[in-house]
Amino acid sequence: MMVTMKVVGLGIVALTVSLELFGWFLSRLRSRRTLNEVLFFPSKVACVEHTFTPNSHHSCCCSLPHSVETSLSHLLRRILSASTSLDVCLFSFSNMDLSRAVLLLHSKGVSIRVISDKDYSAITGSQIGILRKAGISVRCDGSSVHMHHKFAVVDSRLLITGSLNWTLTAVQNNKENVLITEEPDLVKPFIQEFQRIWLLNDPAQNYQNIKLISTVQEA
Amino acid sequence: MMVTMKVVGLGIVALTVSLELFGWFLSRLRSRRTLNEVLFFPSKVACVEHTFTPNSHHSCCCSLPHSVETSLSHLLRRILSASTSLDVCLFSFSNMDLSRAVLLLHSKGVSIRVISDKDYSAITGSQIGILRKAGISVRCDGSSVHMHHKFAVVDSRLLITGSLNWTLTAVQNNKENVLITEEPDLVKPFIQEFQRIWLLNDPAQNYQNIKLISTVQEA
Repeated sequence: MMVTMKVVGLGIVALTVSLELFGWFLSRLRSRRTLNEVLFFPSKVACVEHTFTPNSHHSCCCSLPHSVETSLSHLLRRILSASTSLDVCLFSFSNMDLSRAVLLLHSKGVSIRVISDKDYSAITGSQIGILRKAGISVRCDGSSVHMHHKFAVVDSRLLITGSLNWTLTAVQNNKENVLITEEPDLVKPFIQEFQRIWLLNDPAQNYQNIKLISTVQEA
Repeated sequence: MMVTMKVVGLGIVALTVSLELFGWFLSRLRSRRTLNEVLFFPSKVACVEHTFTPNSHHSCCCSLPHSVETSLSHLLRRILSASTSLDVCLFSFSNMDLSRAVLLLHSKGVSIRVISDKDYSAITGSQIGILRKAGISVRCDGSSVHMHHKFAVVDSRLLITGSLNWTLTAVQNNKENVLITEEPDLVKPFIQEFQRIWLLNDPAQNYQNIKLISTVQEA
């Protein structure tokens, strides 16, 4: 009887300790998985070829420094990590490296949607026309005020946001920040905001509205 | 002997279960404490008097809607929660409600530091001169490029950052975002960036540099 009690007692203790350790391990794993990081700009000027073609590290012979990790190369890598979708909502988009990343993802079959400010999508150097010509879904926010967001959502999971417009001046010259997070409480509102602005600028919807206004005016 | 074994066994089990429950309670408390939220703009136009004087909710007789919670009132409340320090790093600062919040905190003895872009600190409506006249420590980033950040850190604990410049147009008209978080991995880099730019624009340091350059030129 005493032996049985001992065995049962020790068994319960062992089980509880195991559960405690398992819980601790899971919580450690969870906290490690939630990515939270900040990049600051201006980025060092360096070759970013290795972010596009990781295996040709030594093959690029441009005059810029090589094998240097910069804020831009890190940002590119986060964007290029997209495997299913990339939603981009930008006031201004003229940076050719960032545009190349979006085009590369598109060529790999990643579903891309781009929203930009109407006024800034037509300025010199804007990549919006190039993305549209490549077959990427682009909508320009047509409201009379600025669509001043500068964010992207990778695979409906990773938020990239901050002060940085995707322009050469912002990347190479300005003091800027980019915050990258997987925290659901921060990512979800941006997914909803993207969807809201995307639908708000649906050309089919706008065409129907114009038709409705014409009908009312004619009546 | 058997009774002793029983008591010791049960005691260990009870202790382990208690520790497990205590750990769970602590982790729940911790996850609840970590604030993560997002505000979107434009903000509804409404009276924000109650955020400054919470007890005089019904005493304001301006023509704007009252008792309405808006993105601006929420942002003001987060800023006004500062009890020891507020560090503000803004490209453009002309919004009078946000300026009033900073001045109110200053009058209560909260330690305030403000960094702004040199070019934009002198434009019409800028609050930078008003803050400086009130005795608040202000430094203007004198580099030839844009200091394009739009962030604030409350009590070295709470980060407020996003696309929103603290201007009336940004608050009332533009599509903008403000991300508010206590996540240390996100807050700490911004504290360091503030300190870096603050020291970079130390007038004493700059005065020494000018003296050094003059001495070299004279030599």
